[in-house]
Amino acid sequence: MAFFNGIDKIKFEGINTTNQLAFRHYNQEEMVMGKSMKEHLKFSMSYWHTLTGMGVDPFGQGTAIRPWDETEDKIEQAKTRVKVAFEFMEKLGLEYFCFHDRDIAPEGKDLAETNAILDEIVDVIEMEMQRTGIKLLWGTTNAFSHPRFVHGAGTSCNADVFAYAATQVKKALEITHRLNGAGYVFWGGREGYETLLNTNMGLELDNLATFLHLAVDYAKEIGFKGQFYIEPKPKEPTKHQYDFDAATVLGFLRKYDLLDSFKLNIEANHATLAGHTFQHELAFCRENGVLGSIDANQGDILLGWDTDQIPTNIYDAVLAMYEVLLAGGFTTGGLNFDAKVRRASFEPIDLFYAYIAGMDTFAKGLKVAAKLLEDGVFENFKEERYASYKSGIGAKIRAGKTTFTELEQHALQYGVREIASGRQEMLENILNQYIYG
Amino acid sequence: MAFFNGIDKIKFEGINTTNQLAFRHYNQEEMVMGKSMKEHLKFSMSYWHTLTGMGVDPFGQGTAIRPWDETEDKIEQAKTRVKVAFEFMEKLGLEYFCFHDRDIAPEGKDLAETNAILDEIVDVIEMEMQRTGIKLLWGTTNAFSHPRFVHGAGTSCNADVFAYAATQVKKALEITHRLNGAGYVFWGGREGYETLLNTNMGLELDNLATFLHLAVDYAKEIGFKGQFYIEPKPKEPTKHQYDFDAATVLGFLRKYDLLDSFKLNIEANHATLAGHTFQHELAFCRENGVLGSIDANQGDILLGWDTDQIPTNIYDAVLAMYEVLLAGGFTTGGLNFDAKVRRASFEPIDLFYAYIAGMDTFAKGLKVAAKLLEDGVFENFKEERYASYKSGIGAKIRAGKTTFTELEQHALQYGVREIASGRQEMLENILNQYIYG
Amino acid sequence: MAFFNGIDKIKFEGINTTNQLAFRHYNQEEMVMGKSMKEHLKFSMSYWHTLTGMGVDPFGQGTAIRPWDETEDKIEQAKTRVKVAFEFMEKLGLEYFCFHDRDIAPEGKDLAETNAILDEIVDVIEMEMQRTGIKLLWGTTNAFSHPRFVHGAGTSCNADVFAYAATQVKKALEITHRLNGAGYVFWGGREGYETLLNTNMGLELDNLATFLHLAVDYAKEIGFKGQFYIEPKPKEPTKHQYDFDAATVLGFLRKYDLLDSFKLNIEANHATLAGHTFQHELAFCRENGVLGSIDANQGDILLGWDTDQIPTNIYDAVLAMYEVLLAGGFTTGGLNFDAKVRRASFEPIDLFYAYIAGMDTFAKGLKVAAKLLEDGVFENFKEERYASYKSGIGAKIRAGKTTFTELEQHALQYGVREIASGRQEMLENILNQYIYG
Amino acid sequence: MAFFNGIDKIKFEGINTTNQLAFRHYNQEEMVMGKSMKEHLKFSMSYWHTLTGMGVDPFGQGTAIRPWDETEDKIEQAKTRVKVAFEFMEKLGLEYFCFHDRDIAPEGKDLAETNAILDEIVDVIEMEMQRTGIKLLWGTTNAFSHPRFVHGAGTSCNADVFAYAATQVKKALEITHRLNGAGYVFWGGREGYETLLNTNMGLELDNLATFLHLAVDYAKEIGFKGQFYIEPKPKEPTKHQYDFDAATVLGFLRKYDLLDSFKLNIEANHATLAGHTFQHELAFCRENGVLGSIDANQGDILLGWDTDQIPTNIYDAVLAMYEVLLAGGFTTGGLNFDAKVRRASFEPIDLFYAYIAGMDTFAKGLKVAAKLLEDGVFENFKEERYASYKSGIGAKIRAGKTTFTELEQHALQYGVREIASGRQEMLENILNQYIYG
Repeated sequence: MAFFNGIDKIKFEGINTTNQLAFRHYNQEEMVMGKSMKEHLKFSMSYWHTLTGMGVDPFGQGTAIRPWDETEDKIEQAKTRVKVAFEFMEKLGLEYFCFHDRDIAPEGKDLAETNAILDEIVDVIEMEMQRTGIKLLWGTTNAFSHPRFVHGAGTSCNADVFAYAATQVKKALEITHRLNGAGYVFWGGREGYETLLNTNMGLELDNLATFLHLAVDYAKEIGFKGQFYIEPKPKEPTKHQYDFDAATVLGFLRKYDLLDSFKLNIEANHATLAGHTFQHELAFCRENGVLGSIDANQGDILLGWDTDQIPTNIYDAVLAMYEVLLAGGFTTGGLNFDAKVRRASFEPIDLFYAYIAGMDTFAKGLKVAAKLLEDGVFENFKEERYASYKSGIGAKIRAGKTTFTELEQHALQYGVREIASGRQEMLENILNQYIYG
Repeated sequence: MAFFNGIDKIKFEGINTTNQLAFRHYNQEEMVMGKSMKEHLKFSMSYWHTLTGMGVDPFGQGTAIRPWDETEDKIEQAKTRVKVAFEFMEKLGLEYFCFHDRDIAPEGKDLAETNAILDEIVDVIEMEMQRTGIKLLWGTTNAFSHPRFVHGAGTSCNADVFAYAATQVKKALEITHRLNGAGYVFWGGREGYETLLNTNMGLELDNLATFLHLAVDYAKEIGFKGQFYIEPKPKEPTKHQYDFDAATVLGFLRKYDLLDSFKLNIEANHATLAGHTFQHELAFCRENGVLGSIDANQGDILLGWDTDQIPTNIYDAVLAMYEVLLAGGFTTGGLNFDAKVRRASFEPIDLFYAYIAGMDTFAKGLKVAAKLLEDGVFENFKEERYASYKSGIGAKIRAGKTTFTELEQHALQYGVREIASGRQEMLENILNQYIYG
Repeated sequence: MAFFNGIDKIKFEGINTTNQLAFRHYNQEEMVMGKSMKEHLKFSMSYWHTLTGMGVDPFGQGTAIRPWDETEDKIEQAKTRVKVAFEFMEKLGLEYFCFHDRDIAPEGKDLAETNAILDEIVDVIEMEMQRTGIKLLWGTTNAFSHPRFVHGAGTSCNADVFAYAATQVKKALEITHRLNGAGYVFWGGREGYETLLNTNMGLELDNLATFLHLAVDYAKEIGFKGQFYIEPKPKEPTKHQYDFDAATVLGFLRKYDLLDSFKLNIEANHATLAGHTFQHELAFCRENGVLGSIDANQGDILLGWDTDQIPTNIYDAVLAMYEVLLAGGFTTGGLNFDAKVRRASFEPIDLFYAYIAGMDTFAKGLKVAAKLLEDGVFENFKEERYASYKSGIGAKIRAGKTTFTELEQHALQYGVREIASGRQEMLENILNQYIYG
Repeated sequence: MAFFNGIDKIKFEGINTTNQLAFRHYNQEEMVMGKSMKEHLKFSMSYWHTLTGMGVDPFGQGTAIRPWDETEDKIEQAKTRVKVAFEFMEKLGLEYFCFHDRDIAPEGKDLAETNAILDEIVDVIEMEMQRTGIKLLWGTTNAFSHPRFVHGAGTSCNADVFAYAATQVKKALEITHRLNGAGYVFWGGREGYETLLNTNMGLELDNLATFLHLAVDYAKEIGFKGQFYIEPKPKEPTKHQYDFDAATVLGFLRKYDLLDSFKLNIEANHATLAGHTFQHELAFCRENGVLGSIDANQGDILLGWDTDQIPTNIYDAVLAMYEVLLAGGFTTGGLNFDAKVRRASFEPIDLFYAYIAGMDTFAKGLKVAAKLLEDGVFENFKEERYASYKSGIGAKIRAGKTTFTELEQHALQYGVREIASGRQEMLENILNQYIYG
């Protein structure tokens, strides 16, 4: 049965097509720097935004028209959604997906029943995965929507909630493992605080570290070898989220001796909410060897909340793919569209328009980034710019083999010789040239 | 000679005075929790804003009326300013000050001459310190104003600049040591980047760490035992400053094995530019044992740049002093007014109004914070709120002695028992009651 | 029947009470500048946040514990809520309330049934109003939550929606009139746009003006003499809301000849989202004679969305009441708490803590503002500051009776004589003195 | 004499050139929608950023290398700069420039001397204009940098300052008139306030209106027929600038009966500081018939101050030119590059790279915008989207010829018939297709 009647498999038709249900840039087998586009990009569908996002916002009800959802039986609905999801992915040529436990299945009357329902839905997912060859990029837990998580999960002030959240992660790890998930993400939906007047931040951070250590231990116990990720976000829903940005998370992992077990999952809109560019967060991860996976979306930088828009900004896509290529490409990670259609784009076909827009933007981004790298445009400029660190006093600095006294002698003798312009405007113009000629 | 004619020593006159040149709350010998107010607060004058700040802004020239500055001889002017500074501190009862090397003395034709001039001015400062008993809270270097630092100092792309900056810090450390400075601050004025298109962030961060290690080594060499601080700031002047916030700095110090040698100097306005409250940054430092010193000021949170206003917000002062008291008080650090009179407050007497406003706000803040602690208002609430971690499964979590399997058994057996309200509104109301009854 | 068992009528007990269920400052009959506190403040309950707000946020379900809500019968529930509301207002001494049509009653299967249900609930409200003497400050329409308003109401791209919204406002006007509402508010929940790529802004603004004119006409037709208000908000839910801020709304009213029929309802959190202080928006309205009513709340200025927090910041309360007093006090308007308890303050008693906090903050604010005015603190300073406009060339400027040529003669003759300092720091310190001594 | 040795006239070489000192898109005589590119774009040089901007920022001295500036004689320097400016414009093919009075000439010992110096420099400019055919797009006054304007110019609390500012504008109008300037801009550098504690906002706004009326009167008196513009900006340098955004300015002009005499000069970076997109401000002006001229630059939206960067973002350029074309093109106005090279782009050649980047971005933007319009991409979509307003009840609404009662009948009869998706993602994807295929 087809849920998206009238929509065929989306094909690459190149830039001259007038068909808006076609790819202009994403040609999955096209080779770029020795690898196919699909291997580079590893596009993934987000189950939550795509299947369960209804267009609710703080001022209004859902608007989404989803004919397949029209049943009172929540379990039946969940099974149907799996079918819808795989038809959608097949038609778009998406080879990966990501989910939270609570996206794919409804809760039961208690935890035991909830877990049983989850298993029932995972059976259907597993069959669809076998049928289609589509893979699980990563799984995760929703430990933030239910009222029990009002004060956090691993950072709750209530030990019962910690235990409950741990139990939920345990199960989510098991199903991720069963489905051969390549990774598992922690996004601490309510791991943060609303006011310091009632918060013991030290205790909460310690507990969060304990929580993660226990997860790592359990993964070993069951033989799950997928990559763990933490996804930074600075605010929303809590006033201060502990995983503020990549630097904060990295500092946390170092402090609590978790650095060996985690990489980061960087989301564009979370980067900008923290006051950083998307590229900055990726570059920071790359420099520290923890660039794991990407939640591709974009925010409206004039708005102060997480809008999770479909990524269509070509600059962001080029610079993101540039960082991914510099980092050697994805290993376990990929590009997950943690992005939703606008509330006013409420028809099923808008899901296609949206994914096509996102995929084509990143495909073009990949091609431009690869060309920039192959031509050495920015890398050669940088090589030259930092040349003084290759010999003489610069080389000593790089090696950490000098002293203030020696540097003083150098400064008194040479002062500061020629400093070169940073050429920002020229470089930005060249970036434009690579994008549109 | 008196530069502030007609202004006597500012006295404590209590809340019923009508004199705006008097303290209403700052009564330096008054005991609060077993220590005098002045020992708690350790107020410090910022040399730059107070003596050399002229009210220049990006759209206009200086407005400040400073009769003592009217001379063409820059060295004479610098010496006079020292006298002005000490008269000002004496009249306000300020016992500490802070400076950058380039605040106190003009540059000469080359580095050697510059250093000689610096020594000449330091002679005058030293005499004034002996005369008055006023102490140096910390010294620092200005390695950001001169064009040679256009691409940074320790993170410059040019090794000569690295050496030049090192030489400048070397000298600044020497004079700080000579003046028995209790600390030395690194604020990386241009340690950051303008665009990633031309920046090797990894190399720059490595070099910054090397720079700090060399400084630590040199301090040991000359026997300087003062505390090193890093002062976080997220942006301005560069688009991205590497020392973004406390968490970023702490992660950096951990990565590069510098944590033993550094604490943090937290500035209120830098906190808010990074998207944090002042209290958050202080609490984060406290929890990590690196709360060193404070740059007291306030920003206009509706504006996006560092306005460095005189701190008059009582909430910020209460909550900052609350964190300082929780941390056990200042040791080497203090409250440095890194704050400037508004460009439109251009008369010398405005400097007095400004410092009085700031000092009284923090004095009141101290008294309120002490009372809140003595009454256990928030601490008792928190104690109760986290009580579930004191025994049973909670205690095991705290000890790190549990597993996901055990937690699952707990969750299946107990579920989530009662969760308590966070009571934010009641707590905020109580805070008001402590401030104004 | 009592819904808030164990909570008595909240009494004024003064600043020395330890009872958190008491007023320390709000003493309703206490006279301030010749009028009782309750006449000055005209506190109002917001029906939506108080009765129907469940603590839902974009990342989680409702948390609020509201035992009275537990019924499947939506009409019965609506009637019970009316009783709860009036008990709540009686216990707090609130004399006013505000509502949207959809807060007080559920929708039926079509518009006719919806209107019939509405009438049924209004009957209950009317009886409670008669019983208690509590009054309706203003009514309004929710024309933004239902999916039909996805593209706006009066600014929808679809004429049917325009008609539907008009019909809804027609009915809301009728019930507001029936309940002797003192005013009627337009907050254009989705009157704005998501993207200009699909928006005809000119047509939408013209239609909005037409919509308002039709409302004015209809009010005349039915004899409703209450005050119309527009409530500015800059963003959220739409990317750009047409009623951005007070200046934008005023310009709109002028352009479309609506200025005679409307005043503004200023919300604190909307002011800050637009980049203004709460006081600025009030002052701007005051200067233009359109300061109508206030939605009292506060935002977290470090967050980018409308947090609608209970107002506890004393500075904002003082300066808001200062503007209200300067404007001569409220006539038709009042202080409506468009504020909600935090999601983590989920118990019924938190509603009391919250309103007490807000009411006491504004009561203290009123007392401080009145004292500042009586003492002429700021007004005398301003009088002096602008004195040069009282005579000579200044008086001619004020009268518009000069020319560039005459001004040039003045400037060539006198240049610029003494300019005085703005004394911002001294004034801020004095403000503190009036707040806490 | 050539100041830019080694740099020839910049030529159009098309997208295949490797020369970074060439245009790839700006082909000045190329016809686009019936008009040459240069007629469409009317590029203008900003005298201040280009000739007198030295790379000073709040944390550092100027960095710019400008060999021609090296003289002690300020008048000689000013004359040389004129020559440099015209050589620069000639080489880039810029046909317009803009200036403030204080950019082009130094101040003398008093106003009379200042005016005499100004005349002397204007002589040189006039000769260069005659020699080259380059025209003055608009002139303006700098009434914000000098300390006398610390409290504003037309909104100063001091009547002498009002008179002084008027005198300065009088002279600036005279020289703009003499040079056949096509317009005159008011940007109220310090027309705003720092704190409401000392500000009479009503008086200041009234005075500002008087100031503008006097300017209009004087222009008539001397026969100046150029267009007057106001340039909105929300903050910086003052905390609140009165000309916050386009809507605020328009409301002000309406209130004070100035709408006939003014249009707006929209700056991209000012738009974003006010929380709007550049396109929004242009569209708002277009809809109100006051789109006058453009200050082309771009801000860093993650930073909170006016960065005045060279505009290189193609989306902004396309959408800006789209609005200009929709508005029928520039009449008196043009595209003035109110943009500066980064402080780290300090070589003279960077000025060329920067202008080339900006001009090529807008040239490409023009071509894309024209194609979008010619193909009716967005306009047809909108036409269809609002079709319900063309007949029936919609047409009555548009004509203002209906009532709530009639609308109610319509709603009860028809309810809301089909609502269409807004298709934002598809439209954004199409925009990308027009930019890069």
